Amino acid sequence: MEPLLLIPGPTPLPQEVRDALARPMIGHRGEAFATLYRRVTARLKPLFGTGQEVLIFPGSGTGAMEAAVVNLFSPGDRVVALVAGDFGARFAAIADAFGLAVDRLEVPWGWVVSPEALRDRLRTYPPGEVRGVLITHNETSTGALSPVQELARVAHQEAGALVVVDAVSGLGGAPLALDGWGIDLLLTASQKCLMTPPGLALLALSPTAWEAAERARLPRSYWDVREARRFGARGETPYTPAVSLWFALDRALDLIEREGLDAVFERHRRMGAMVRAGARVLGLQVLAGEEHASPTVTCLLLPEGVEPAALRRSLRERGVEVAGGQGALKGSAIRIAHMGATRPQDLLVAVEALGEALREHGRDVSPQAAVEAARAQA
Amino acid sequence: MEPLLLIPGPTPLPQEVRDALARPMIGHRGEAFATLYRRVTARLKPLFGTGQEVLIFPGSGTGAMEAAVVNLFSPGDRVVALVAGDFGARFAAIADAFGLAVDRLEVPWGWVVSPEALRDRLRTYPPGEVRGVLITHNETSTGALSPVQELARVAHQEAGALVVVDAVSGLGGAPLALDGWGIDLLLTASQKCLMTPPGLALLALSPTAWEAAERARLPRSYWDVREARRFGARGETPYTPAVSLWFALDRALDLIEREGLDAVFERHRRMGAMVRAGARVLGLQVLAGEEHASPTVTCLLLPEGVEPAALRRSLRERGVEVAGGQGALKGSAIRIAHMGATRPQDLLVAVEALGEALREHGRDVSPQAAVEAARAQA
Repeated sequence: MEPLLLIPGPTPLPQEVRDALARPMIGHRGEAFATLYRRVTARLKPLFGTGQEVLIFPGSGTGAMEAAVVNLFSPGDRVVALVAGDFGARFAAIADAFGLAVDRLEVPWGWVVSPEALRDRLRTYPPGEVRGVLITHNETSTGALSPVQELARVAHQEAGALVVVDAVSGLGGAPLALDGWGIDLLLTASQKCLMTPPGLALLALSPTAWEAAERARLPRSYWDVREARRFGARGETPYTPAVSLWFALDRALDLIEREGLDAVFERHRRMGAMVRAGARVLGLQVLAGEEHASPTVTCLLLPEGVEPAALRRSLRERGVEVAGGQGALKGSAIRIAHMGATRPQDLLVAVEALGEALREHGRDVSPQAAVEAARAQA
Repeated sequence: MEPLLLIPGPTPLPQEVRDALARPMIGHRGEAFATLYRRVTARLKPLFGTGQEVLIFPGSGTGAMEAAVVNLFSPGDRVVALVAGDFGARFAAIADAFGLAVDRLEVPWGWVVSPEALRDRLRTYPPGEVRGVLITHNETSTGALSPVQELARVAHQEAGALVVVDAVSGLGGAPLALDGWGIDLLLTASQKCLMTPPGLALLALSPTAWEAAERARLPRSYWDVREARRFGARGETPYTPAVSLWFALDRALDLIEREGLDAVFERHRRMGAMVRAGARVLGLQVLAGEEHASPTVTCLLLPEGVEPAALRRSLRERGVEVAGGQGALKGSAIRIAHMGATRPQDLLVAVEALGEALREHGRDVSPQAAVEAARAQA
């Protein structure tokens, strides 16, 4: 039997998506691909909460982050990067690599940067100095969900800054609205909530961001959104797209539409609640506070004496694959993803396996009680 | 029936490769992926003709070209770009975009830059001035194959320049030897001779190029070969790899090994000869001279009065998909690819269809005679 893959990306592929992957190849300069291009990008708009074009590059989510940096900014531009975990740190590091002046607004892992903290930081700068605010929507390393809408409002009001949101592990699992929330660039990747293999980097820009892209002076070629938009107008891409992954994404969007976007979000919310409820009964601490708990991934702190690597092995023997902690949490945490094609039923299996694995590691816990607590949230 | 896809990438996928694409997802930070990583990259070395590590990024061939530029050079560095078609022009444009001082050594489409012409150009510079020579191995827009080994020798002897070779449409279809030919950076993509869907950018560097990558000052993050090598040492990638495409490439390498690399090259050579022989009987001119004719793609000039778009439609009705001309040849040429999973038998079908399509467009030609001429080369 296939293991239950509950790592925060790549996520399990529905059978329909796997079937789509295996389709015969087609050319990328013909009508068949143009039709696919238009159908996929149009159907992504509700997930991005935008009427703007969605652009898709062959690349990973990290590539989408680089695309955001090189398209919006010029060397030396001041940006404030919200760092509440590994992926916030990555976004800041990418901005560093391209010579931006990066101010890291850091909070302990598991927390989120509050709108008040952002406001205070922005007020330390002269008006107009801060050109961008880099926000991680859903911090995959900690399982904390940022208040993006409020942060965006503060960034605009206090600094008139571009609001750049990495939603790699959140888009498709939680509401987002480029147009409605004042986001200027919203980016994601294929392999998380979108139930598609890794290899597609997706992003959309606000009209303000499009203007910034015209003025930005960082060198760019591969990630140039202007070229992507120009080719996109005729259903093409500037260079060969990852066609098979487009087939897969097209099919995954069918599944999302069939379930309904609100139902998808509600399922993710419930799955997060299930994992947290079950874990607490098992004596595990959820890293993120309940008010910021992610609907797509949960980071659990293990009790003294339980090694994450050993616990993950025990889980693997029970057919459940979870992720380890990142950074400073590598030796003390595990992460369970509940995103994409994963179903509430899968998490009952996972919670039970987690309970059994903890028992194997000497913890006197009741897997059945944990399953019941999880089921109550399902 | 599926059309016979004879465009110069993406190329047809063997059934085994399609089956591999559809495999269930796996995590990219576990032993299963590390094993896959090591198996795939080790087996690519003979195709690159190198003992150096082969690096694989999620991206297109154009991404591999950008990776070459940003890893080897610094702003203002002088490079000589050999431009004999659309992809040579693209490489030069990427170098431009990153602020290199690009000298285009251009020849008419269908020609290749000769080692003598390169030598003459390099001698116009003071010693040490030219830092790199950008070479297109197999110009997809014209079907001409460059004498890479001789060009590399001249570039080293005359300028001590880094030899950067775009082999997107040639690697796996013709011999190449990073180590033996003095190539410093050799790059390709998954969707041509490697019989894998688009979405993987592959490259390998010589020891000299690795030193250059340490000194280069262009900003880079996503394409940073140093990070890729560091993670690669433990069978990982710096960020999420395009796992399904790795499954596919792994299977495609099985097929290449089963056929044998020399037999693969010989099959490509014969397929090129078949198309050229058949086309000549049909009164079509092969753009590239016979001595530089590509083993993977052929550009055919159509007689006055035959529109490429209309001819391609006629071919499509016969189940054969070929490409149009690029650039100035858009209105006067077609391109037939013979690479990857394509078999000699497929080209007999294509030549016959081409003859019939030409008859439909008023040309008094014999499809059967063309098939016989092609078969004589098979």
